[in-house]
Amino acid sequence: MESFVGLPLNELDTPVLCIDMPLVEINIARMASFFAERPAALRPHTKTHKSPVLAHRQLAAGAIGVTCAKLGEAEAMAQAGIQDILIANQIVGPRKIARLVNLAQYTQVMVAVDDPGNVEELGLAAQRKGVALRVLVEVDIGMGRCGVPPDQPAVDLGARVATTPGLRLEGVMGYEGHAVMIPDYEERTRRAEAAVARLISTKEGFEAAGLPVPIVSSGGTGTYAITGDYAGVTEVQAGSYITMDTQYRDKVGMDFHLALFVLAQVISTPRPGVAIIDAGVKTLTRDFGLPVVAAPEGWELTRLSEEHGFLEQRGGDPLHRGDRVKIWPNHGCTTINLHDHYVAVREGSVEAVWPIAGRGKVR
Amino acid sequence: MESFVGLPLNELDTPVLCIDMPLVEINIARMASFFAERPAALRPHTKTHKSPVLAHRQLAAGAIGVTCAKLGEAEAMAQAGIQDILIANQIVGPRKIARLVNLAQYTQVMVAVDDPGNVEELGLAAQRKGVALRVLVEVDIGMGRCGVPPDQPAVDLGARVATTPGLRLEGVMGYEGHAVMIPDYEERTRRAEAAVARLISTKEGFEAAGLPVPIVSSGGTGTYAITGDYAGVTEVQAGSYITMDTQYRDKVGMDFHLALFVLAQVISTPRPGVAIIDAGVKTLTRDFGLPVVAAPEGWELTRLSEEHGFLEQRGGDPLHRGDRVKIWPNHGCTTINLHDHYVAVREGSVEAVWPIAGRGKVR
Repeated sequence: MESFVGLPLNELDTPVLCIDMPLVEINIARMASFFAERPAALRPHTKTHKSPVLAHRQLAAGAIGVTCAKLGEAEAMAQAGIQDILIANQIVGPRKIARLVNLAQYTQVMVAVDDPGNVEELGLAAQRKGVALRVLVEVDIGMGRCGVPPDQPAVDLGARVATTPGLRLEGVMGYEGHAVMIPDYEERTRRAEAAVARLISTKEGFEAAGLPVPIVSSGGTGTYAITGDYAGVTEVQAGSYITMDTQYRDKVGMDFHLALFVLAQVISTPRPGVAIIDAGVKTLTRDFGLPVVAAPEGWELTRLSEEHGFLEQRGGDPLHRGDRVKIWPNHGCTTINLHDHYVAVREGSVEAVWPIAGRGKVR
Repeated sequence: MESFVGLPLNELDTPVLCIDMPLVEINIARMASFFAERPAALRPHTKTHKSPVLAHRQLAAGAIGVTCAKLGEAEAMAQAGIQDILIANQIVGPRKIARLVNLAQYTQVMVAVDDPGNVEELGLAAQRKGVALRVLVEVDIGMGRCGVPPDQPAVDLGARVATTPGLRLEGVMGYEGHAVMIPDYEERTRRAEAAVARLISTKEGFEAAGLPVPIVSSGGTGTYAITGDYAGVTEVQAGSYITMDTQYRDKVGMDFHLALFVLAQVISTPRPGVAIIDAGVKTLTRDFGLPVVAAPEGWELTRLSEEHGFLEQRGGDPLHRGDRVKIWPNHGCTTINLHDHYVAVREGSVEAVWPIAGRGKVR
């Protein structure tokens, strides 16, 4: 697909996943400028873009490292030379742990733990390999997914990490996933602050116990300005802001540009006011809601089957067979996960084609 | 991944998409035996499995060819030597049409049309290439997606195809997608028969107009026994039956085996009665509903985030970190589309690893 570089966008076959590079650059700069003025730093989550190329742009703008959801993403980032990687998840089982300590040989990889047995197996593997594996204790700050309870249980696990050969205790992390998408800003702030308060209270418990806690990591795109301003938080994991999606813009009201789009094509106009495009749920996700037609004006996407999207006319001009339709995904993270490549677009032409290196494969 | 062959299933890292080969073989044989006794033939849809290896097994059991949803699937099948391919969709735009007529040079490819302008551009491209492109007129038999209306409008388009140099009219197709998943069998039968009656009425219109109509193609997994027994239908496009999913088994009541599963692993047990696995919506889809825990007994999958699945205990034994969990997808077609490979399993060991060749890429 590299041979597409320089082609006008409308020469590309459809459906194709595109990113608008000037908008990506504005999003990166806007988030970077927020953190430039604050004690907390940005460690952007790569689960959204899954692209080392885009991660390097974020690092160049001041990010201190990257966050990953899974080992396969971390490996893709490490292979592209990225040195400071947080896997914000538990790594379990002998095969994955072997891959993790391999990574630790040539990157500053850091992993989340929430279980003493996992701490023990990680320590044994790191010792055998002769590496010092960096570890954050994951605290459940209200989402109810992974993590130990705040305060004493977390401190107890931190003490276990600190005394386990092969491991280096780096601090705590907690994700307020239950707050990031609350539409009302005051309610979102209240819930996010209540969550982060549990993390800070735990950090203070670490300090009282004499445990090192240089890193306190939290935050998503919907809460970056709340957690990023909360005293004691050292790092924020926001990721979706770089490409954005209509969920974060229209439901949560986040002020970043919609840089991600799918270019589709009308394959059938079976009756007036209806157009069928060549993009369905194998191209666009609807796990939070339906994607939105960015252009042309006057058309609404009302349904997706596997390889078809249904557009209904609410105004504007008719659509014809072969017409191009630009669609903004409702959820960037899961939409990107369906595709193998990005087409990076600038001024209507293809600037680059980049593999979505962190998708698929063994996790 | 080929080096996994021979390994016990529990040696594989997670999450991994698997197919149980003895169950696949029973499903193939069961569907083949239905069509062995009837005038209608099976042309299985490959949009589910997207695998030429599995398509060849279906052909060996008596299928007369394959059905594809998009050009990329058809190319994957053609590259594996499959000769008789129906693309049950419109192919639009100069690039895709160029790829289609390339395919027609070395396979018996057949495409659906629902528009006179599309007929004209297909004919011109086929003529330039010196091929005879096989064409079915797609009839909207009640689903309201692509297709021309039944009877005279379809006959008019058929006449256009028949008189267009470069094209060879092969008949009609229509998909009763609005009927295939109706849980009540009598209601499903009523709706499917009403739909197929429109297709047969259109076929009779073709005959009255002196147009060739050797092929009348319809049917999905939920309706194969209805359309396959309907007088005048020559081919059925059912596809999901080969791997099955819990939607088709539990909601629609189809009598095939659940041969598709994801093997996941417990990464965290944050509190009694809850286990978190390493499979979320980037591994398992929930476009129709949540997947189902196949083993161990007593656990229910209640929620999916991007890389995490939430299991809650309803009975049985506790789950521990590192335990394997076998999950049946709710929708096979979209789940398979998330993965790059199948692991084919027999008697608890890896028999083969096959690429999901028809996924991703330019459609």
